[in-house]
Amino acid sequence: MHIWDTASRNRDARLARAAPLVRGKGVEAADAAALLEAVLEPGDRVCLEGNNQKQADFLARVLAGLDPARVHDLHMVQSVLALPQHLDVFERGVASRLDFSFSGPQAGRLAALLAGGRLSIGAIHTYLELFGRYFTDLTPRVCLVAAQAADGDGNLYTGPNTEDTPVIVEATAFKRGIVIAQVNERVDKVARVDIPGDWVDFVIQSPTPHYIEPLFTRDPAQISEIQVLMAMMVIKGIYAEYEVNSLNHGIGFDTAAIELLLPTYAERLGLKGKICRHWALNPHPALIPAIEAGFVRSVHSFGSELGMEEYIRARPDVFFTGPDGSMRSNRALCQAAGHYACDLFIGSTLQIDLAGNSSTATLGRIAGFGGAPNMGADARGRRHASPAWLKAGRQARAGSGRMPRGQKLVVQMVETFREHMQPAFVDTLDAWELAETAGMDLPPVMIYGEDVSHIVTEEGIANLLLCRGEEEREQAIRGVAGYTPVGLARDRRAVENLRDRGIIRRPEDIGIDKREATRDLLAARTVKDLVRASGGLYDPPKRFRNW
Amino acid sequence: MHIWDTASRNRDARLARAAPLVRGKGVEAADAAALLEAVLEPGDRVCLEGNNQKQADFLARVLAGLDPARVHDLHMVQSVLALPQHLDVFERGVASRLDFSFSGPQAGRLAALLAGGRLSIGAIHTYLELFGRYFTDLTPRVCLVAAQAADGDGNLYTGPNTEDTPVIVEATAFKRGIVIAQVNERVDKVARVDIPGDWVDFVIQSPTPHYIEPLFTRDPAQISEIQVLMAMMVIKGIYAEYEVNSLNHGIGFDTAAIELLLPTYAERLGLKGKICRHWALNPHPALIPAIEAGFVRSVHSFGSELGMEEYIRARPDVFFTGPDGSMRSNRALCQAAGHYACDLFIGSTLQIDLAGNSSTATLGRIAGFGGAPNMGADARGRRHASPAWLKAGRQARAGSGRMPRGQKLVVQMVETFREHMQPAFVDTLDAWELAETAGMDLPPVMIYGEDVSHIVTEEGIANLLLCRGEEEREQAIRGVAGYTPVGLARDRRAVENLRDRGIIRRPEDIGIDKREATRDLLAARTVKDLVRASGGLYDPPKRFRNW
Repeated sequence: MHIWDTASRNRDARLARAAPLVRGKGVEAADAAALLEAVLEPGDRVCLEGNNQKQADFLARVLAGLDPARVHDLHMVQSVLALPQHLDVFERGVASRLDFSFSGPQAGRLAALLAGGRLSIGAIHTYLELFGRYFTDLTPRVCLVAAQAADGDGNLYTGPNTEDTPVIVEATAFKRGIVIAQVNERVDKVARVDIPGDWVDFVIQSPTPHYIEPLFTRDPAQISEIQVLMAMMVIKGIYAEYEVNSLNHGIGFDTAAIELLLPTYAERLGLKGKICRHWALNPHPALIPAIEAGFVRSVHSFGSELGMEEYIRARPDVFFTGPDGSMRSNRALCQAAGHYACDLFIGSTLQIDLAGNSSTATLGRIAGFGGAPNMGADARGRRHASPAWLKAGRQARAGSGRMPRGQKLVVQMVETFREHMQPAFVDTLDAWELAETAGMDLPPVMIYGEDVSHIVTEEGIANLLLCRGEEEREQAIRGVAGYTPVGLARDRRAVENLRDRGIIRRPEDIGIDKREATRDLLAARTVKDLVRASGGLYDPPKRFRNW
Repeated sequence: MHIWDTASRNRDARLARAAPLVRGKGVEAADAAALLEAVLEPGDRVCLEGNNQKQADFLARVLAGLDPARVHDLHMVQSVLALPQHLDVFERGVASRLDFSFSGPQAGRLAALLAGGRLSIGAIHTYLELFGRYFTDLTPRVCLVAAQAADGDGNLYTGPNTEDTPVIVEATAFKRGIVIAQVNERVDKVARVDIPGDWVDFVIQSPTPHYIEPLFTRDPAQISEIQVLMAMMVIKGIYAEYEVNSLNHGIGFDTAAIELLLPTYAERLGLKGKICRHWALNPHPALIPAIEAGFVRSVHSFGSELGMEEYIRARPDVFFTGPDGSMRSNRALCQAAGHYACDLFIGSTLQIDLAGNSSTATLGRIAGFGGAPNMGADARGRRHASPAWLKAGRQARAGSGRMPRGQKLVVQMVETFREHMQPAFVDTLDAWELAETAGMDLPPVMIYGEDVSHIVTEEGIANLLLCRGEEEREQAIRGVAGYTPVGLARDRRAVENLRDRGIIRRPEDIGIDKREATRDLLAARTVKDLVRASGGLYDPPKRFRNW
């Protein structure tokens, strides 16, 4: 006879093993390792909450320190690898398999461990894709999450860094898995309930508050005048022309420059109230001047950003905040909004090939792509219209006789040369060789050329929507690739023809005077300016304070 | 000076107006109209929870009965229009604008009201798209939701029909909106917390339990032998060939036939454990025999299905269930899984054109598409590989020189003639004329031909992935369109050529003997058989009981 409650019985057995360590739902920090050894079984799928910002760092340390003779071959299913411990688990033999989304700071070590045979990688995902698999074939058996506070019933309060916690806990708790939370404090009553207590099995007060990475803070002092020029092109040549009203910006100085030009350059062009009203975005400090200027109607966020807490609390009309006044972020729902409700995604990359495919994967680094593939892909299930979406679709389909359809604007914004004079434009992505050496099924492409609508460099804008055929596309890309070998190999006549047709546009074609592109245009030129713009509410982390 | 807490202050004003009606969070049913008049303001965006299954029917009645002199011009943002009251609000002048996803049963009346100028439609969305907009430009100011029970703190228990409630409440509560829940009962302690009480403002015990529509129950007695034949083709010609392991089925007898052939025909082909293990699917009763046969590893659900409660409770290894034993469904997360974690979507439609575009929109009916556009679109942000996804991508790109990429299998399964001998294949979709008359920006296409991989009819399978160019595609479609005018107009030589190349396959080409396609192959031939297969756990609604 078939047993249909294997998971429930097994859960009960795990809870029974842990029982001696527990009072209510509480477990002492000193007993954390014993708890994990009691509830974990070899081969378990485990989600150790690694977010973009918030880290379950105490539980990560405990997990990495377990005896691999007792706990081994775990299959880690977590969105971000940010801490050394996220890789220590593989080096020490506690875990052996990995499915993930982003490993920015650990990308080099991850590649080395893979080459050394210390782990196998299932796949690299975009966030929402990994979350989707939590409910199909990658459901965690045990999850280790982080919150600000818990009450005696196990109700969790995350504060502004809610991030992945709801989706991780929902997948685990409702498939009879085990949910363990580290919290900064235990309280009688939480300020608000982000995760209901009956979804949580164990609560551990960690010896130190969980770590939060300020990933989205860009110091305006580091923005160059070339970036100001590119930002002007984006605002006038794309945002204004398509009436872009809902959007996401990637991380980086390029897009920070755009944010800082909204209250100056864009305002002067009369664009306030006409562009950039709704955002799916972490609370970028660089957005403060645009918010203060009244450009921004709403911001829903994947996670929070250190130092922005009081500013957010004072701007509830803009941000999503709870009864306690602090933000509720939610990576899964914000990614859904980023995919389906946004007209435009703009971000940067390390390499772009002649078809417009881009990747941040380079040799010796397996970095993953986070949310970029989700937001930087045409949302083919989208059915609601907006001026931007309709115009992009019309341009892409003009004369094709195909069924009319809208299209997302996906913009890649790069300088033609990166640091150390590495060209951003290449004949062949490093991703090909990486796929070969790491045994991947496909080259790890972040954004496919087929989904890219525009490439912006200091030389101009290439509108790929208007290109007919792969050859035109290639020349359009070469035509903005500057003095890189890819750019120098352009067919000059073809490029001039593309320029005549408006497929390539130089700053002067859009009516931009390059001499205007100075740092004076930035609404804030330093972090201190941002603090001032916020009325003193923004409290930047120490590393960004140089006054 | 700019005011940054307009929404909070306005919320406080609304709560103050309602205060005389409230004890704790409770409001008497008799005071429901007074409550709505107190908290609603003209022009509000309102989400009245209309799901596929669960309906906030009491609140719908109260809303529709309000005095339009006091409450008018509401903008309804709700996924499903299922009840007459969902349209009464427009007819009576309480509401005037609509953004939605699906209106199946009310599609005709909706078209008539639109033609009569009683409302304007913002857009038709797929579910996840509408939810995404809840966090950008369509955030509800007030939401009216339904739950099974509430405790004194306002904690809500939804039971298995969680559906849209979490995403609606999260968007509303964290943008300083007002959350009102109707519940079937008030209890001291809820069986589990689905929505935390501090996200909920008012709780009303409704005079009768909320309505639930059994939308996914198909009586096996109504499955025809043609449908059995088509199901055999899908199993052998698609599921087996691509090793389809994660999938979603649409509503309908065509896909119910597939579900009922898994334990018989598919088992005989040796496919158990090789296909159809992970599902994003409501608990279809027709899936019971496949579950009992051990075909199914997991099912995550958008909503529940009436009568399946005890069966689900007894099969926790398969379904996602809570500490109380009942299911937790979640439409937003299941749609994310359906989009990103599934290799295949298969569904039916009313009309398909020569490019493979399909629509259920016909003249005089504005039906919407529910989840189909989300699940029936290539998920271009997907990056994890599976055999099915890689093979589909290879077929679509063979010889193109393009960057390799996987692709989702999107299958349309239709008989060449529908009821009343209406051809399923047409030269021009009715959607064109509907767009014209209703002033839509684009024809309402459910699934674009560009996203369709296969079309299956009783005549055979057309593999559109293998077609090169639009002409081949057209002939492939004509080649399975039978005796419809579209099918009769085929170029016979071209079609035979496509057959030689395996682009069109007849049953005999796949090794299927049509004489085998009898109802005897169905694992259950009646609803009673389903009950028997469930060991008596499935308890079908009365309308499906004829014994």
